[in-house]
Amino acid sequence: MSGHSMSGSPETPRDLAHLGHVEMLTPRIEASLAFFTDVFGMTEAGREGQSVYLRGWDDYEFASLKLTEAPLPGLAHVAFRTWSREALARRVAVLEASGHGIGWTDGDMGHGPSYRAHGPDGHVFEIYFETRKYQAPDALKPALKNQAQRFPARGMSVRRLDHLNLLCSEVEPTRDFLRDQLGMRLTEAIVLDSGIWGGAWMTATNKTYDIAFTRDHSGRRGRFHHVTYAIDSREEILRAADIALEAGVPIETGPHKHAVQQTFFLYLEEPGGNRVEVANTGARLMLDPDWEPVIWTETERKKGQAWGLKTVESFHTRGTPP
Amino acid sequence: MSGHSMSGSPETPRDLAHLGHVEMLTPRIEASLAFFTDVFGMTEAGREGQSVYLRGWDDYEFASLKLTEAPLPGLAHVAFRTWSREALARRVAVLEASGHGIGWTDGDMGHGPSYRAHGPDGHVFEIYFETRKYQAPDALKPALKNQAQRFPARGMSVRRLDHLNLLCSEVEPTRDFLRDQLGMRLTEAIVLDSGIWGGAWMTATNKTYDIAFTRDHSGRRGRFHHVTYAIDSREEILRAADIALEAGVPIETGPHKHAVQQTFFLYLEEPGGNRVEVANTGARLMLDPDWEPVIWTETERKKGQAWGLKTVESFHTRGTPP
Amino acid sequence: MSGHSMSGSPETPRDLAHLGHVEMLTPRIEASLAFFTDVFGMTEAGREGQSVYLRGWDDYEFASLKLTEAPLPGLAHVAFRTWSREALARRVAVLEASGHGIGWTDGDMGHGPSYRAHGPDGHVFEIYFETRKYQAPDALKPALKNQAQRFPARGMSVRRLDHLNLLCSEVEPTRDFLRDQLGMRLTEAIVLDSGIWGGAWMTATNKTYDIAFTRDHSGRRGRFHHVTYAIDSREEILRAADIALEAGVPIETGPHKHAVQQTFFLYLEEPGGNRVEVANTGARLMLDPDWEPVIWTETERKKGQAWGLKTVESFHTRGTPP
Amino acid sequence: MSGHSMSGSPETPRDLAHLGHVEMLTPRIEASLAFFTDVFGMTEAGREGQSVYLRGWDDYEFASLKLTEAPLPGLAHVAFRTWSREALARRVAVLEASGHGIGWTDGDMGHGPSYRAHGPDGHVFEIYFETRKYQAPDALKPALKNQAQRFPARGMSVRRLDHLNLLCSEVEPTRDFLRDQLGMRLTEAIVLDSGIWGGAWMTATNKTYDIAFTRDHSGRRGRFHHVTYAIDSREEILRAADIALEAGVPIETGPHKHAVQQTFFLYLEEPGGNRVEVANTGARLMLDPDWEPVIWTETERKKGQAWGLKTVESFHTRGTPP
Repeated sequence: MSGHSMSGSPETPRDLAHLGHVEMLTPRIEASLAFFTDVFGMTEAGREGQSVYLRGWDDYEFASLKLTEAPLPGLAHVAFRTWSREALARRVAVLEASGHGIGWTDGDMGHGPSYRAHGPDGHVFEIYFETRKYQAPDALKPALKNQAQRFPARGMSVRRLDHLNLLCSEVEPTRDFLRDQLGMRLTEAIVLDSGIWGGAWMTATNKTYDIAFTRDHSGRRGRFHHVTYAIDSREEILRAADIALEAGVPIETGPHKHAVQQTFFLYLEEPGGNRVEVANTGARLMLDPDWEPVIWTETERKKGQAWGLKTVESFHTRGTPP
Repeated sequence: MSGHSMSGSPETPRDLAHLGHVEMLTPRIEASLAFFTDVFGMTEAGREGQSVYLRGWDDYEFASLKLTEAPLPGLAHVAFRTWSREALARRVAVLEASGHGIGWTDGDMGHGPSYRAHGPDGHVFEIYFETRKYQAPDALKPALKNQAQRFPARGMSVRRLDHLNLLCSEVEPTRDFLRDQLGMRLTEAIVLDSGIWGGAWMTATNKTYDIAFTRDHSGRRGRFHHVTYAIDSREEILRAADIALEAGVPIETGPHKHAVQQTFFLYLEEPGGNRVEVANTGARLMLDPDWEPVIWTETERKKGQAWGLKTVESFHTRGTPP
Repeated sequence: MSGHSMSGSPETPRDLAHLGHVEMLTPRIEASLAFFTDVFGMTEAGREGQSVYLRGWDDYEFASLKLTEAPLPGLAHVAFRTWSREALARRVAVLEASGHGIGWTDGDMGHGPSYRAHGPDGHVFEIYFETRKYQAPDALKPALKNQAQRFPARGMSVRRLDHLNLLCSEVEPTRDFLRDQLGMRLTEAIVLDSGIWGGAWMTATNKTYDIAFTRDHSGRRGRFHHVTYAIDSREEILRAADIALEAGVPIETGPHKHAVQQTFFLYLEEPGGNRVEVANTGARLMLDPDWEPVIWTETERKKGQAWGLKTVESFHTRGTPP
Repeated sequence: MSGHSMSGSPETPRDLAHLGHVEMLTPRIEASLAFFTDVFGMTEAGREGQSVYLRGWDDYEFASLKLTEAPLPGLAHVAFRTWSREALARRVAVLEASGHGIGWTDGDMGHGPSYRAHGPDGHVFEIYFETRKYQAPDALKPALKNQAQRFPARGMSVRRLDHLNLLCSEVEPTRDFLRDQLGMRLTEAIVLDSGIWGGAWMTATNKTYDIAFTRDHSGRRGRFHHVTYAIDSREEILRAADIALEAGVPIETGPHKHAVQQTFFLYLEEPGGNRVEVANTGARLMLDPDWEPVIWTETERKKGQAWGLKTVESFHTRGTPP
């Protein structure tokens, strides 16, 4: 396997603009909502049916998290905004031809018509272009007009949706799907001694990853690992740990620095049972258009995280639904 | 004027990958070199003729700053790497057709053949695709293999080239050139009450700008305002101010936060007379593919910087060559 | 003048333990209260008569700020806790003998009997030993039992009262009073070319100052300059500036670093008209028991603050009452 | 046991001013010296015999670390500066009367005559008053005159000696010795279910501890656990971890936040085999003169550190000499 061939060819269409939103399921909607507004410091943008729409202060779209009541926690769908209407049409054509396609939706409170497809492991992916850009009400208007919403100064004050992490029964098919169907680029990966892929990190932007997916040791399909919101500085992530401690929110691991992607992380469990992360990801960027993916071996990963913290066992086994 | 129309159309070819390097002229090469290595914390990658090639620890290419001895300080050229060979060919065709083109070079110590063109104000722009990726010597090999070079822990330890700022006798022609010839997107601008543009900020990436240019109150053409290197955190930029103070490096203004683009800045004068900046720019990203540019009025800009600091007069008048 | 002789002799009784609280007057009690709770992030501990008692999350006593409604803003009194009952008795004896004494109070909501005295410029100083240590209600109990109160994660989340700054018609008499009557040590001072003192910074602790006082250019007596609350990091003070900007709180100057004492500062105007500061002061400590005070000359002070910011004119003239 | 009675009585003489220096033994003097200068960023102040004297940039005395070549790593002695000559005489009288005294020394390169005593576990304690204040050579003169030395901007750039940690076969006798003979105050402690003390943290200043000592699970006497240097911010301690990683310095545990004392820590092993720590300790101060010590139970300590990290086993067993 040549790492290089895993990257998108330079002339691969770059049709995805960015990760747009995530629909997360929770059996405890009120408790989850309180967590995301009071502890994460997000803002409620709207409600519809069994769902509440939430946003970070720097998310430019209407909402980045759709929280939906359901019997079990997990991921309902993940959505990417395309670069343009034409880009959307191109991706839909590819998805339809591939047999992964589910079909068009009429849109949602926060965006226009979208097209859905099943990923190889059963996760639901959505793409859309028409969106509703957030218009802050007077009480939330920012002082600087190049900002979507007033900085909340409440709880962790998360900035914006950063990335998503899935569990897959097999990593390779989802890697191929995201590369070939959606046009994403591989930046880092874990390849076990057996040759089986343990994890992959892919991007549609200059962030070093917008989505990651790792092997589900339980062998189950289509589960959710975590969603991550960005906070500006490592100092504020340490403060987020203080805030989690005070709020009684379980800290699974961190704050510490990942070896893979060098992300400074803090993993929490929200009351609905889903894993969520706050991280600062912006200092390191993926500017190189023909970046050769970094492949980590099993031996290298056994060294633990960047500064030596051992990866917690639950990280490989706990996903939602449980 | 519609701000919206200033943004690249969604289907504008996105052929530039990122700002690649800057060639800066200095009449005091030894003093400038000492500043960039000891105070900025950059690494010398090579020398050739009257030039020294320098790099930040996270620059993935061979060098991002070419420092060249010359009678007067200023900018020799600025270079962008394209997304692919095909993207380079497309841009060259456009530049040749436009009459801006100068012609091909044989390349340089750090990259392959490049094509040069004159911007409307006389600045020299270069584009290239073939590059030399940095291979750290043993003493500079990093502990984590997803990093170009060991973190230096010396002086300000700047991370990577971030952006460039030019002075223009008129802003509008350079704006049009970068949009139409090079395919960059406008994200923010200052438009004076007279309708004349005071400044523009444009990007080829998910950074909110890779280049800025402001009106030269002296009316001269083709001057250089500053080049900026990224540092990870605001805390480290405050520390950079301490380091500048200890080293006797003149601080022109800052640390403070710009209202435009919200960059946390520190402006210094390197010994050759050029203005240089350290800033942290990664927390705020430009993810929106159809972002409507933010237009600042003259009245708004008179409020000063984000937290009220007045813009120093020299910022509008001092450029290189002086 | 020998700077050295200005320091307390090594065997000077060290009877003051620390700055305990400040009673601040405001003509707009509701607006001031909203500022201190929502923007500063303080907690209301109690109310009595025209006063509200406020505290930072790490203040170990019941309250550190008594906010009292009055026709004009300003300082009602400043209080220091003594090291012991015996220390209190020793200081009271000295104050009574000196003729500065006012007399005993019956105590207040937050502390036991106290003794008050007029400083030479008319400010009211109070000393006490018996205090009420804060007992957090269940909703505010911290996760770690070596902390007074839960971290609020609201607004600036100020930590604790740090220091006080007075305006004096003459600096020297207050310096002598604090040294000779209260046993404080001088750490830094400004002495003008005329020999007149421009300001003095004195401490009763290992902090480099607990009180400062500067010359009132208006020539008035007994005015108040500002009170300062501590925040842990410079990063969080930058964030405090963002929060002030969003809340419409006037920023007088900063964030920047003082040359004197090297404090990283941000000066604000609370709605009642008083100047307040947030600063981080803990990194630099005064450990030396026979520290020779640092005397700054008029020329040195004209250089501005540490990184070159000019001291704003209002800093020398604005005080409360106005 | 009443925790309260463990604190110094309010009228206990406060004769110690602060921790002054530590003499550390190393079997690899050149490698240790390279570590402390290049990685810790300390400055060599002088050499004499088998010893090198080192200092942090904000240590006001000549040196805070005396590094001495010896067959085995460990602690040679720890020294506290007294508040005054009179305070020194008082403590010497007490030590002589107690039978712990060893006798006077003629002083050292960095200070005048000192008196030494054996602690109950065999550690050597030294007290002195006359000291040599650091005079920076021209190349190391700071820009601001209220600072001892230029900020080095090299490696971790540690600020100043912060505290010391000893291993004791029994904690209680050393606790009593430091309280009764030296006049230190207890601020926090671990008391096991058996009633045996597991650790104690004591202070002579407004820092929450200047010395700590924990039970040596090996049962040996007089061993050394670690010495700690202060760094200003948590952000810079994270950076210190990056620097340790790059330099190949073993990270034992951290960065993380202790529950006890809430210190943000990073533990390293210097080449001579001694454990060293960098921490930021200044934000939290011990201002209360009659602080009731916080006693942690065995159950509470089993929860691990503040954010849940389990205490590494080596922390209880590894000391020097090994």
